[in-house]
Amino acid sequence: MGNTNVTTLHKPASAQYPIHDLISHRWSPRAFSDQPVDQATLKSLFEAARWAASAANKQPWNFIYATRENPEAFERLAAILVEANSVWAKNASVLILTVAKRGEYAGHEYTTYYELGMAVGNLVTQAVELGLATHQMGGFDKAKAIADLNIPEGYDPITVLAVGYPGNHETLPETLREREIAERTRKAQDEFVFEGSWK
Amino acid sequence: MGNTNVTTLHKPASAQYPIHDLISHRWSPRAFSDQPVDQATLKSLFEAARWAASAANKQPWNFIYATRENPEAFERLAAILVEANSVWAKNASVLILTVAKRGEYAGHEYTTYYELGMAVGNLVTQAVELGLATHQMGGFDKAKAIADLNIPEGYDPITVLAVGYPGNHETLPETLREREIAERTRKAQDEFVFEGSWK
Repeated sequence: MGNTNVTTLHKPASAQYPIHDLISHRWSPRAFSDQPVDQATLKSLFEAARWAASAANKQPWNFIYATRENPEAFERLAAILVEANSVWAKNASVLILTVAKRGEYAGHEYTTYYELGMAVGNLVTQAVELGLATHQMGGFDKAKAIADLNIPEGYDPITVLAVGYPGNHETLPETLREREIAERTRKAQDEFVFEGSWK
Repeated sequence: MGNTNVTTLHKPASAQYPIHDLISHRWSPRAFSDQPVDQATLKSLFEAARWAASAANKQPWNFIYATRENPEAFERLAAILVEANSVWAKNASVLILTVAKRGEYAGHEYTTYYELGMAVGNLVTQAVELGLATHQMGGFDKAKAIADLNIPEGYDPITVLAVGYPGNHETLPETLREREIAERTRKAQDEFVFEGSWK
């Protein structure tokens, strides 16, 4: 949250009950600056992911990343994205593919994806602390990811994250700029929180 | 983190790179005090979950909770747990069943579980801020949860969380006490973070 660029758009959650700034200040912009993300910062992001909870401490999360300092690796990762994502995500300083290990929890096979999500939740929270923006994408070619990034049998790529310092949203193409400034909205709590049993 | 009970066990992560206290101080104890968790605090926990990211803002997360102030609902939720969990989790002030909506993302069906995990990640981070302990459990009877808690077709219960203020670990049965004081460990980053492609 140390970014002082006056062109940076801030969109804190319009929370109805108090929540910590690290949670309310996270959102998913498409505008990134070209400031590099250094290795120490990347290590802190993955360290946050590392300390997430998992059943029997199996830690089924995995990450493949590329920075723009390594153009060949960065292009290979960017190339798995759908065009609607790559058009802006290619300007992020870092791309991270998240990968879940299958088969860890007999009878509870979906827990592995859930735990990957918790690890990424820690990562994006730590990113806010470090002044970084993150934007997660489901729109990518899974088969191409598996083939081009050499992902072994038994592992599922789930999302790609664009990570970088916030940029100037006024430089985005007009259609993206409109989405960038749109209000953040969520369902009311009574639509997804139930006391006692489902209602 | 405002709990001043001297019997409370603290187990901050032995992080190798800097991470925020809200992440490093989260762990999964089994000892809970009998101090109730009030409604305003619960609202903040679910509010944190509410502002997680999701593809197309679908927010596929759902929660069923029960507090010990409502014994009938609490017992019904506790009864879905395996015995190894209910023996200690029944002393928590709150139990929360997490439930993912299926079928939101064609071709990326696992994203719903991942996003539920991110929402819970926010919840457990907010819990640390509020001085609460959380312990997630995969060990419960899914079919019983669906039947007894009236969960509709198309939704998957994934975990149960025990939530409450930290208790005195010296009151736990001996086998649990040993696990409670055991060192927290994680894989090294180079086992799950890869640059460029899987190695």
